Amino acid sequence: MKSIAVDMDQVIADFIGKAYESAKVRFNLDITKEEFEKAKLEVDYPHIAKDFFLMINEPDFFRDFELEDPDAVLVLKELSEHYEIYIATAAMDVPGCFNAKYEWLLEHFPFLNPAHFIFCGDKKVVKADYLIDDNVRQLQSFTGEGILYSQSYNEDCNEFKRVRNWKEVRELFLPVKSK
Amino acid sequence: MKSIAVDMDQVIADFIGKAYESAKVRFNLDITKEEFEKAKLEVDYPHIAKDFFLMINEPDFFRDFELEDPDAVLVLKELSEHYEIYIATAAMDVPGCFNAKYEWLLEHFPFLNPAHFIFCGDKKVVKADYLIDDNVRQLQSFTGEGILYSQSYNEDCNEFKRVRNWKEVRELFLPVKSK
Repeated sequence: MKSIAVDMDQVIADFIGKAYESAKVRFNLDITKEEFEKAKLEVDYPHIAKDFFLMINEPDFFRDFELEDPDAVLVLKELSEHYEIYIATAAMDVPGCFNAKYEWLLEHFPFLNPAHFIFCGDKKVVKADYLIDDNVRQLQSFTGEGILYSQSYNEDCNEFKRVRNWKEVRELFLPVKSK
Repeated sequence: MKSIAVDMDQVIADFIGKAYESAKVRFNLDITKEEFEKAKLEVDYPHIAKDFFLMINEPDFFRDFELEDPDAVLVLKELSEHYEIYIATAAMDVPGCFNAKYEWLLEHFPFLNPAHFIFCGDKKVVKADYLIDDNVRQLQSFTGEGILYSQSYNEDCNEFKRVRNWKEVRELFLPVKSK
């Protein structure tokens, strides 16, 4: 059985949705969501970068994210019958998030096996056949086949197969409808 | 550069030392440390199994473990100049431990890169050349070369190279003394 590792933030969990709304309220950040998505906070908004990092490290910050795409649930459930599914998230970047991420996964994806959750940093260390990730650097580091989950900040990358939503993930991995 | 993944509990961190002392005090467990090491709590002491699991899930339980072998620090420091070192711990078994394990690693091994910490379940997903672990099942699941860190409960296993302490780890991976 082949294995698929799946990133969390901006692939199954809407990190930017909450981060953007929270930054507007807490730091009076007056920019569009698209500007926020593409921004490098340390460079573009250095006056809030430190407080932003503290905010996302608060123990509950990751707990109530929306799903990035509601289809992710049913598609991952179906994929899990044909592939070994791992969740691989660079949680070491934000150590305050460990418990919230774990609980969020159990809530939204109760059919996944927690023994297949991986909180890591560099995804070079993840052994799987595929990795679905929005982060080009992680896909370059990963040693299996990378699948780029499309987001505005990675639109210039042509290095990997690209999926735009979870229906496209399904089409890629289960091309013949099983029922 | 070859990579070595290193387990935490009973390889660099003395889980059993604290667990045994705590179980004696909290649950009046009257057995020797060797009996405790080899025990399967659910089978041998089912009346305390649930409370034991709750105890080790307390947020600070893992925070003040002793080092399994004080030599681990200098040996890992030296190894990290010749190998990529990863710490791979089955933290998903005890989700309450995430933060304590992270902080413990930063305290005792400040020279390691947190981007190389892996909190996982099944170590089949860890991509490294070597894994040093006390758990035979994890070494069997791992796809690189397993090195068994000797403990009383794995003494019957002849399937892997065995190291008894961190001096032996050093001899195995850096056989010619570098200075």
